[in-house]
Amino acid sequence: MVDPIHPGEVWLVGAGPGDPELLTRKAERLIGEASVVFYDALVGPGVLDLARPGTRLVHVGKRSGRHSKDQKTIDKLIVEAALAGERVVRLKGGDPSIFGRSTEELTACRAAGVPVHICPGVTAASAAAAGLGASLTLRGLARKLVFLTAHAQAGDKLDIDWQAAADPQATLAVYMGKSSAQMLTVGLITAGLPGSTPVAMVENASLPDERRFTTRLDLLPLAARTALGDGPALLLIGEAMRVDEAVPAPLSYSAFSQRTMP
Amino acid sequence: MVDPIHPGEVWLVGAGPGDPELLTRKAERLIGEASVVFYDALVGPGVLDLARPGTRLVHVGKRSGRHSKDQKTIDKLIVEAALAGERVVRLKGGDPSIFGRSTEELTACRAAGVPVHICPGVTAASAAAAGLGASLTLRGLARKLVFLTAHAQAGDKLDIDWQAAADPQATLAVYMGKSSAQMLTVGLITAGLPGSTPVAMVENASLPDERRFTTRLDLLPLAARTALGDGPALLLIGEAMRVDEAVPAPLSYSAFSQRTMP
Repeated sequence: MVDPIHPGEVWLVGAGPGDPELLTRKAERLIGEASVVFYDALVGPGVLDLARPGTRLVHVGKRSGRHSKDQKTIDKLIVEAALAGERVVRLKGGDPSIFGRSTEELTACRAAGVPVHICPGVTAASAAAAGLGASLTLRGLARKLVFLTAHAQAGDKLDIDWQAAADPQATLAVYMGKSSAQMLTVGLITAGLPGSTPVAMVENASLPDERRFTTRLDLLPLAARTALGDGPALLLIGEAMRVDEAVPAPLSYSAFSQRTMP
Repeated sequence: MVDPIHPGEVWLVGAGPGDPELLTRKAERLIGEASVVFYDALVGPGVLDLARPGTRLVHVGKRSGRHSKDQKTIDKLIVEAALAGERVVRLKGGDPSIFGRSTEELTACRAAGVPVHICPGVTAASAAAAGLGASLTLRGLARKLVFLTAHAQAGDKLDIDWQAAADPQATLAVYMGKSSAQMLTVGLITAGLPGSTPVAMVENASLPDERRFTTRLDLLPLAARTALGDGPALLLIGEAMRVDEAVPAPLSYSAFSQRTMP
């Protein structure tokens, strides 16, 4: 279904996890058709190279602690561009429907009578699992997959139902989870999840500087503090993350996992 | 990161939800480099057109009730092709790490010493949300996203923790959920989720014959039975699926939703 962007239309486009090869073919086409692209901090650099020369590229990124433009300003910029007859692409890291705050932009466009569409993308958890050579779900063992965002502002408490989250048959994928590692470990272990539950941490999933670590739930706060840098990090918690020791995956797990899992 | 397929290697490749435009650029490249492609029933027809002339295309699809090849046979075919020096793509609907049974194939390859990699894809829930013009997560209202597969063989009971699933702050995305609509409604309402909880049903997400319906949890069994056909259907349950009535989305919701939500 090839839908070109018409002047005055907005497309919310998933840029995927960062690797420009993990854009969809549709996203590539839409970026090429846009007259203006508003993009997030989490959009990888090679992605913007797909815009035509002359396309206006506007950074509206937000990153933890560095809110360069607030959501209402972004909504306004997008709507104004569309009303001025531009072909608007709003490029969001990952998939627009998963922790992408798309509802605010959809609502702003509809309120202004601006046609708005969504092009889905590969979400970070899928890319992180691919890098680990693992599945997020396992028949019998991990039949449920839960995506949480656990980004806590300094001093905030996480509003998480720990009993529901501590399901030994689920895989938890925690977006932007680094700052919440301590709270995740305390909350999940208190609710009954074993401290030995395997955890994978993936920073900068799919990018050339992707880093992967394996640890266990009770060591997660130490591991996150010691091993992770400033890149966006995804925490994957659950039995599906247990590396099969009989047949190890041909992965470059860091020395960290060897130190913490003797 | 451009990783070509070497002879003797296997790539598990996400084919996305069906629309060939929703393949990643990487998947497109890998399909073009493959000497043999093993593909699922859920892989859309236009996707296979991206293979080079001469590439062997092998259907190993499984669909509910029509298991054409069992998993062990598929594992064996893939491993044998790699050991014979082929460049193997195993194309899976959606994302290989989400209900894709990838672990069996990863393990079979590793046991045989065959290098195996994963290329992530757009999962069906992301495509369904895009078609609905909705987000799966909402700040404040739907901070958690839960993927379940609720495919029940005739007579089987679903092994679901209903208390955990009936979280009013979560969006439930139920893959292959049509046959389980009755059990989902009973289980979730018994566990406390209001019967008025909005539900979207999306059949054949992203394909030309995509069909979208909105209903409410207590009417879901009737709606699924009446409205859905034989295509793969995703059920999305939660407040994030409530269509904003003040500013309606410009969507072609079927008459069904109007009949059931007067």
